[in-house]
Amino acid sequence: ALIAILPGDGIGPEVVAAARQVLDALDLGLTFEEAPVGGAAYRAHGHPLPPATLDLAKRADAVLFGAVGDPEFDNVAREHRPEQAILGLRKELGLFANLRPAKLFAGLEDASALRPEVAAAIDMVIVRELTGDVYFGEKGRGTTADGLREGHDLMRYDEAEVARIARVAFETARTRNHRLCSVDKANVLETSQLWRDVVIEVSADYPDVALTHMYVDNAAMQLVRNPGQFDVIVTGNLFGDILSDQASMCAGSIGMLPSAAINQDRKGLYEPIHGSAPDIAGQGKANPLATILSAAMMLRHSLGEADAADRIEAAVTAALVAGHRTPDLGGTATTQDMTNAVLAAL
Amino acid sequence: ALIAILPGDGIGPEVVAAARQVLDALDLGLTFEEAPVGGAAYRAHGHPLPPATLDLAKRADAVLFGAVGDPEFDNVAREHRPEQAILGLRKELGLFANLRPAKLFAGLEDASALRPEVAAAIDMVIVRELTGDVYFGEKGRGTTADGLREGHDLMRYDEAEVARIARVAFETARTRNHRLCSVDKANVLETSQLWRDVVIEVSADYPDVALTHMYVDNAAMQLVRNPGQFDVIVTGNLFGDILSDQASMCAGSIGMLPSAAINQDRKGLYEPIHGSAPDIAGQGKANPLATILSAAMMLRHSLGEADAADRIEAAVTAALVAGHRTPDLGGTATTQDMTNAVLAAL
Ligand SMILES: CC(C)[C@H](C(=O)O)[C@@H](O)C(=O)O
Ligand SMILES: CC(C)[C@H](C(=O)O)[C@@H](O)C(=O)O
Repeated sequence: ALIAILPGDGIGPEVVAAARQVLDALDLGLTFEEAPVGGAAYRAHGHPLPPATLDLAKRADAVLFGAVGDPEFDNVAREHRPEQAILGLRKELGLFANLRPAKLFAGLEDASALRPEVAAAIDMVIVRELTGDVYFGEKGRGTTADGLREGHDLMRYDEAEVARIARVAFETARTRNHRLCSVDKANVLETSQLWRDVVIEVSADYPDVALTHMYVDNAAMQLVRNPGQFDVIVTGNLFGDILSDQASMCAGSIGMLPSAAINQDRKGLYEPIHGSAPDIAGQGKANPLATILSAAMMLRHSLGEADAADRIEAAVTAALVAGHRTPDLGGTATTQDMTNAVLAAL
Repeated sequence: ALIAILPGDGIGPEVVAAARQVLDALDLGLTFEEAPVGGAAYRAHGHPLPPATLDLAKRADAVLFGAVGDPEFDNVAREHRPEQAILGLRKELGLFANLRPAKLFAGLEDASALRPEVAAAIDMVIVRELTGDVYFGEKGRGTTADGLREGHDLMRYDEAEVARIARVAFETARTRNHRLCSVDKANVLETSQLWRDVVIEVSADYPDVALTHMYVDNAAMQLVRNPGQFDVIVTGNLFGDILSDQASMCAGSIGMLPSAAINQDRKGLYEPIHGSAPDIAGQGKANPLATILSAAMMLRHSLGEADAADRIEAAVTAALVAGHRTPDLGGTATTQDMTNAVLAAL
């Protein structure tokens, strides 16, 4: 299988290199091809997602992505900002399903701002729709009848978009504790009412999964009050952006959490949920575990290598149990120290 | 001054009655007139916001609101749901500025799911825009060219809407620590880019206030990681709905927090941030402090009675210091016990 390696900006190249070492060690006969993305691509080719990079991502069986974002481009027009690369990849590859597990790793109870007993119970997957909603609706700037500047973005879903993400979420719940919470704002938004209607319709095919509904404001409260109550959450692109970052932070280990963005053919883009962290780039301080765990998700979801994925995850747990800690976890291990610990445990 | 009393549903009547006792004790020469709202109004008059209730709210100098919402109406059409009353009042009275203080009260460190040292540092005001955004944009259901059901809601702001809420936020920051964080999603939304442009323009008039910007996903993380970093947050209607509930829960004392919704003339609607809590309605278990503190906000912001507001707030602190605790705070005091404690401390 061909893996597209898109390291990106900041600590992206370091953490992707670490994951690459782990994949190499497993000897799965994978082929790797690398291309620039984000600020690095803009610098080299004048575009955050150059045609050759997009072409590689399309040809590949899966994409391993680092991170994009660089303060150098803060004043560049939005269509050339590093973030556009990730939005473009999601749209062009049809990566509609974002799987974001959030759990507290044993031994890291102190990393969360939540009380240890509250944080320890966190073990959920947030399934976020990734190619629709107000992210991709008609948007623009204009002038009102009174000559005032205005800005607008259309929030929108159709039933097919909702049904396919709902199915991914119900299937995910089946592999876990069979509980699914759909988050919307159906007391205010028509988009949410359609969302809720369709999720309920799809639930008929999953009688073994217990479906509940929660308003997004309440969900933001419950993720603080008692995050252990959630098994699988399914929600739209915008609410998912907010809630999944919140849930990750509740789990405390933002340097630990992987993510997958998958399309109809289970081709996917895999990336750590943390950003490019320009402040620590190039210093060997980055925690590589989120990217290593993203590589494990890639093996499981896109490459049919569930056993190899299990091995990586067990090795990460072993490295943590052995006490290895990068600075974000309160330790002094370098990126390479931590990678070595995982390699040793493999 | 005429105060409209809208008790609403669930525990609304109990907590409003408690606040009324406190206002009466201050002998400020206020006149009170009561009207039904929410599910109670729908039951009596077939509409959650009957014309006579809206008329009273318009005639009054301020509105003291309990809570709306009742599972009995879950299957009623959206335009008759209890929540429509609050949306209607906001729109009809032009209540564009929602002030939501979130702070941890001394002695209640154990009420938060956050570590006590993280929670203790919380002391912020969230200024939420309340009459625009995707809440009030064009919305509807339709059918796509392929015959699929769809739902949509237009997110939208114009510069006047953003500028007036920004001014309220800068003024609020001036009464506090002179720091304002504007929250948006300008890396994705045109609405947010306009928002950010206008907030920056308005900041020219407030050189004494330090303005920063944060994306909403990051804000949701920072409210968990280190909520003590915020002084005043300003944001749009939808992001404000989510973040202010999250912040309240971080402060742990959802039964303690008041809110104000104010218009251009500083007329306002004052309500506890908690909901109608139908599960404990009529049992004397509700914590009346959020509503009592809402009454204090009413005296300060709409009635020019800052001294009386200070007295109420001091009496609430005194009641807590004396150890009175309703069940939500881990105690056994009834609504009336807690009210009596505040009255005694006045
Ligand atoms: C960078 C940004 C466009 C992106 C998003 O909002 O989706 C990011 O926050 C994420 O969650 O992957
Ligand atoms: C009841 C609902 C319409 C309302 C809102 O979303 O504004 C509530 O959540 C609030 O924050 O006051």
